[in-house]
Amino acid sequence: MAVYTEVSDDELIEFMSGYDLGEVVAFKGIAEGIENSNFHLTMTGGAYILTLYERRVAPRDLPFFLDLLDHLAARGVPCPVPVRARDGKALRALAGRPAAVVTFLPGLWPRRVTPGHCAGVGRALARMHLAGADFVGRRDNALSVSAWRSLLKSAGPEVDCVQMGLAVKLGRDLDTIEAGWPKNLPEGIIHADLFPDNVFFRGDDLTGLIDFYFACRDFLAYDLAVCLNAWCFEADFSFNVTKARRLVGEYDRVRPLEAAEVAALPLLAKGAAMRFLLTRLYDWLNTPEGAFVTPKDPLEYVAKLRFHDRVASAAEYGLDVE
Amino acid sequence: MAVYTEVSDDELIEFMSGYDLGEVVAFKGIAEGIENSNFHLTMTGGAYILTLYERRVAPRDLPFFLDLLDHLAARGVPCPVPVRARDGKALRALAGRPAAVVTFLPGLWPRRVTPGHCAGVGRALARMHLAGADFVGRRDNALSVSAWRSLLKSAGPEVDCVQMGLAVKLGRDLDTIEAGWPKNLPEGIIHADLFPDNVFFRGDDLTGLIDFYFACRDFLAYDLAVCLNAWCFEADFSFNVTKARRLVGEYDRVRPLEAAEVAALPLLAKGAAMRFLLTRLYDWLNTPEGAFVTPKDPLEYVAKLRFHDRVASAAEYGLDVE
Repeated sequence: MAVYTEVSDDELIEFMSGYDLGEVVAFKGIAEGIENSNFHLTMTGGAYILTLYERRVAPRDLPFFLDLLDHLAARGVPCPVPVRARDGKALRALAGRPAAVVTFLPGLWPRRVTPGHCAGVGRALARMHLAGADFVGRRDNALSVSAWRSLLKSAGPEVDCVQMGLAVKLGRDLDTIEAGWPKNLPEGIIHADLFPDNVFFRGDDLTGLIDFYFACRDFLAYDLAVCLNAWCFEADFSFNVTKARRLVGEYDRVRPLEAAEVAALPLLAKGAAMRFLLTRLYDWLNTPEGAFVTPKDPLEYVAKLRFHDRVASAAEYGLDVE
Repeated sequence: MAVYTEVSDDELIEFMSGYDLGEVVAFKGIAEGIENSNFHLTMTGGAYILTLYERRVAPRDLPFFLDLLDHLAARGVPCPVPVRARDGKALRALAGRPAAVVTFLPGLWPRRVTPGHCAGVGRALARMHLAGADFVGRRDNALSVSAWRSLLKSAGPEVDCVQMGLAVKLGRDLDTIEAGWPKNLPEGIIHADLFPDNVFFRGDDLTGLIDFYFACRDFLAYDLAVCLNAWCFEADFSFNVTKARRLVGEYDRVRPLEAAEVAALPLLAKGAAMRFLLTRLYDWLNTPEGAFVTPKDPLEYVAKLRFHDRVASAAEYGLDVE
């Protein structure tokens, strides 16, 4: 739950007077989201989201994120559109933070994921990858394979407090992942964090993709591997191959996967599990008592990592592999 | 910051299908509010607030609160209006909690209170008192003078950890308050918690009173005394008599205070300071580490109590006293 920065009514009204959106009607902090402070903003001109960027987001990356949203929205991706103030700027400052106003997207994020949702996510992810192909902005993936060894080291010996022997096991997993990591898969703009709470639906229709603040340039198939981890496991950590088949199948229908991507998928999925395991481990061991945000249990991703370990080929994700 | 109960998209859609408000368009937890879980709900028919009542609110009181809102709204008080489902009920159940949908009110609560805001609050409070005169519901004030001694006792010896010698001093204050507490002032429905975050404005126009979950039957002038404490002190705890004059003056213009109410105001103000001091003290000493809500510093109300101690007559609140 998050609203880290208080915004006064006076500050807000002054700030919004720089936009052509009419007057401020109402303003509520949103409890969801753990990286930034988000507010539901009702203007006489309609509903918007106001985001104040907090310390986890590097200010130098903000133009990349906002330009990307502009680019994707112009190509029909249902993402928030940054609203420019009368000075032409979408990125401004409020209450001592970088701040932006974006359009409000309808829809609810699915708490109980169905195969239909997975199909929608697969299609939307592939369309987003195609729409991002001619985006010129650059941002490397700061949380890709090259970062994981030092993340594991920074978690320190306390890793074994989460599960006895985990530090050594993860070290070996990393050896395998680093040794096998592909070098020449199709690259492009990836979302890199497309979990259910970042995707809105109305009924079975996908109405919005949000929270692009991990977006970067990396292997496109890695983004699909993130989604396999985020969408296709049940609460008991069992893998639902029906969901995976819909996710990967619909992706492949919109953007056909190359043979090398299919072959790499099990290792990419293992890498994606490692990435979320490591940041959760870090948060789990470093969140101060009394913090607003309850860290997520890293053991969920230990189980996912073990699942991908046993996967011999992408056929087990429901892909038709020759 | 509060959303204590998670509501799934499926549960919400099922729940809202019982209303004539169209379809669910969007749904966000609201970070503000510390007693209940509140959600900003966009329906095709407009914006609403969905509240799930948490443990601090007694279920048996909920019909009183919802009937009161109906009653006040019908008499022009700008408060949330409970929306009845097709079964005729405003109070229903969702995610294992009592739940209600109310209308969304425009406006922002003032972070920097001006004398103009105080005038608006004085008028609105008096109008609410008049509008409540023929309300038949009964709810005694569970946090009135008779409850304060046991609240102080339940805070225990740790009170002196907040300020050395505070427990004894507060005991003596309570002696004075109990001995002098009036018996025969005009009674009626009071809000009992009309702090700035419960009052919305657009510019200088008061657009909403919210959060009636402490409303009860008590002395009307006690409600005014609560507002003196909540609206007329600066951040350094100094008393702003200009604000008080506007608050009390506008109240008196709409609902003229009786001589006995004016005479009792300093003691009522001391009592109101005691009431908020005691619940803050209780929360301060009993909030577990790691809780979502940061307890408010009780010393603010120690300073306010000391101020009212030195007040000889209501003239010091800016009232014209013969």
